[in-house]
Amino acid sequence: MKKVKISNNVIRRMPRYLRKLDELRAKGLNRVSSAELSRELGLTPSQIRQDFSCFGEFGQQGYGYNVDSLRDSIALVLGADRAYKAILVGIGNIGRALMDNFCFAEWGIELVAAFDVDVSAIGTSRNGVPVYSAEELYDYTVKKQVDIAVLAVPGAVARDVARNLTELGIDAIWNFTNVDIKEPYSDLIVENMHFSDSLMALSYYITERNELMARREAVGNE
Amino acid sequence: MKKVKISNNVIRRMPRYLRKLDELRAKGLNRVSSAELSRELGLTPSQIRQDFSCFGEFGQQGYGYNVDSLRDSIALVLGADRAYKAILVGIGNIGRALMDNFCFAEWGIELVAAFDVDVSAIGTSRNGVPVYSAEELYDYTVKKQVDIAVLAVPGAVARDVARNLTELGIDAIWNFTNVDIKEPYSDLIVENMHFSDSLMALSYYITERNELMARREAVGNE
Repeated sequence: MKKVKISNNVIRRMPRYLRKLDELRAKGLNRVSSAELSRELGLTPSQIRQDFSCFGEFGQQGYGYNVDSLRDSIALVLGADRAYKAILVGIGNIGRALMDNFCFAEWGIELVAAFDVDVSAIGTSRNGVPVYSAEELYDYTVKKQVDIAVLAVPGAVARDVARNLTELGIDAIWNFTNVDIKEPYSDLIVENMHFSDSLMALSYYITERNELMARREAVGNE
Repeated sequence: MKKVKISNNVIRRMPRYLRKLDELRAKGLNRVSSAELSRELGLTPSQIRQDFSCFGEFGQQGYGYNVDSLRDSIALVLGADRAYKAILVGIGNIGRALMDNFCFAEWGIELVAAFDVDVSAIGTSRNGVPVYSAEELYDYTVKKQVDIAVLAVPGAVARDVARNLTELGIDAIWNFTNVDIKEPYSDLIVENMHFSDSLMALSYYITERNELMARREAVGNE
């Protein structure tokens, strides 16, 4: 596999390919061409070939891709074979939604424990994942070599908790709070699930479309 | 305001500016320079000035930006004054998390109703938002001129529900399912909250960093 710096945009398209290939596989398809992937995904075939070429050769010109092996190659690229260990910090609604409904294992991640300050939850487990007291975070993290912290605490304490986690040696955070926890130029790896950013983008696109339609209508009425 | 097509990357940075400005405002700051914003956000000052210039002039060279008016200008650009009406479809864990904890109003969106097939939930309300039967969706949508559907149904039915919603005239979907619901080249506006994509990207960045560190160590040991 080539070792070049891959752009963010390419990385972000890879999980989309993965989902599409899972879908094709579920339909019993064995081979898929970049033209077919292109139609399914609304990307150009050359874009798709170029994306895949970042990671070496996934297929053979003219023969299309083997669905299974393309799927597995992309999963490897994305680290799905690494079995990274994750802990969940905060089991409010979002934290519980993740524990109950999100299949970490499907994506090669092992959710090993959850932590909260709510005494009624401590000592219980959800979906096979034990809930510990926030006070046990330090010992646990050191002993179990945790790779990822899933941050689902209230926004008001997000930065403090993130700082504590990095001091415990955790250097990758999946951030479900509405707060930017990454200090500029720090090495911390953060993936943000900022709900409000996504909603604001949606709102922008609606406004843009409505304004475009209003202008078209104005022109039509002239 | 200029009417040019703004790139996706710029749109996606705008909510980040908004959050940062909210934070500065909460601290009592009145003015901020692009250099200060740059330090806070880890972007270059010229990047920031260029982003803002897409929407006309937000500040005056050399004087920095007025925090309040910059904040409000960005909110306007993002359509936060439009009071778009949203409905929630599906009140499983994610749906409930949104109803209980996500402040739609703060972002200029009015969550007017939720819909589900669970008979025990129908007729109740959460956080002031009524829960109706999925069968009432049609009448409601037509009567109330809904702008946005928040899709939080199980993945297995996501595409069918999305198709029904678009047939009801809804053309903007905030998609919390793990399924790509947008047909290529359709006009439907979709904002995806694909949890797994974000986790896969995180996993990739961890793998990339670990490999880089391993190579550095190998060189160091030579």
